[in-house]
Amino acid sequence: MKGLTQDEQLDGQPADSRDAILVAACRAVAEQGIRGMRLEAVAREAGVSVPLVYYHFESRPGLIRAVLRYVGAAAPSEVLRERPPGFSAYEALEAALISEIDDEPRVRDASVIWGEVNASAVFDPKLRDELRRVNRAWSALVAEAIESGIADGSVDPTVDPAVAAELLISLVDGLCARWLGGTLEVERARRLVAAALRAALAPRRASDSIE
Amino acid sequence: MKGLTQDEQLDGQPADSRDAILVAACRAVAEQGIRGMRLEAVAREAGVSVPLVYYHFESRPGLIRAVLRYVGAAAPSEVLRERPPGFSAYEALEAALISEIDDEPRVRDASVIWGEVNASAVFDPKLRDELRRVNRAWSALVAEAIESGIADGSVDPTVDPAVAAELLISLVDGLCARWLGGTLEVERARRLVAAALRAALAPRRASDSIE
Repeated sequence: MKGLTQDEQLDGQPADSRDAILVAACRAVAEQGIRGMRLEAVAREAGVSVPLVYYHFESRPGLIRAVLRYVGAAAPSEVLRERPPGFSAYEALEAALISEIDDEPRVRDASVIWGEVNASAVFDPKLRDELRRVNRAWSALVAEAIESGIADGSVDPTVDPAVAAELLISLVDGLCARWLGGTLEVERARRLVAAALRAALAPRRASDSIE
Repeated sequence: MKGLTQDEQLDGQPADSRDAILVAACRAVAEQGIRGMRLEAVAREAGVSVPLVYYHFESRPGLIRAVLRYVGAAAPSEVLRERPPGFSAYEALEAALISEIDDEPRVRDASVIWGEVNASAVFDPKLRDELRRVNRAWSALVAEAIESGIADGSVDPTVDPAVAAELLISLVDGLCARWLGGTLEVERARRLVAAALRAALAPRRASDSIE
């Protein structure tokens, strides 16, 4: 807390300073990467002091962990938590995973941030616990959708939901890295997600193996 | 060339100075990431002058591109170019892709470097042409192995080799990122590669859909 009390810190600060810092940090990571993110620049962009950044997030890794949580909570796959009626679990899952790959700035920035935190965790073990937590949450969400698909008949009943979920999210990450790194077109990446879902999850009709 | 001729530059330098620089650069990227790589430190480690680094690689991005080529040429999947007799194409492909994920330092370092170049390409378009080239080579190698597998009966003949190859290498990249970032155990990552190959490529027997 750098010797300042909460009242001193918050005196005169807008109530949503924490959010403003998070938004500024997300933009900084999306534009320059984690290693290019400067706390001074984030504070300036958010219109707050650097000590207030420390007050809310404790440390630089603390801010990065909060950025990861913030991005994870807004991820396109989160729509799976409340599936609209009239769609099979397979259709909902396909729509959710495809929408993770999109040149719309908000989605693209979130994907850049996700990739950055993953890449930084290779060199910074302090990020790993949070990364594991967010990864597990995503994997569990996809596994639940696969289980629902087995129940509603839209997914092959011989599929192992946990294995298929981990494979699918790892694949989406790998395709995102290619898309963001400029080696794969966004539309092809999206078609590849759809193809992978068919190969991994679609029920196999008897005709598939007879023809 | 910074105003120095080739003779001036090479005077008194060991003939393998280019290799020594490459090896030192690989180590630097594997240990501290591309953004942590300092040309001065690479030159010192290689026992050469900084101008000689520029002489051989022209620029910092030039050195990173050379590192990517160097790592790509030694990738475990390269064994697919000369498949030993007695193995099906499917078995060779499975062995090659699984061996991309290994805590053996040489393999791990190469994977860290590969992930780093991918992550950096998001922010540095100068890396993308080389990355596309290396990616296309890897994808083509895997697609050829899949075609061989269709020819020798070890791969489902309805598989599209180009699509399956791109999916498999993207998946391996995604699993590598999780393994290196500490969110996936190496043995589980390897088992997931094997499971994905079965789901994507294994011939479907009639019994699969009847039971």
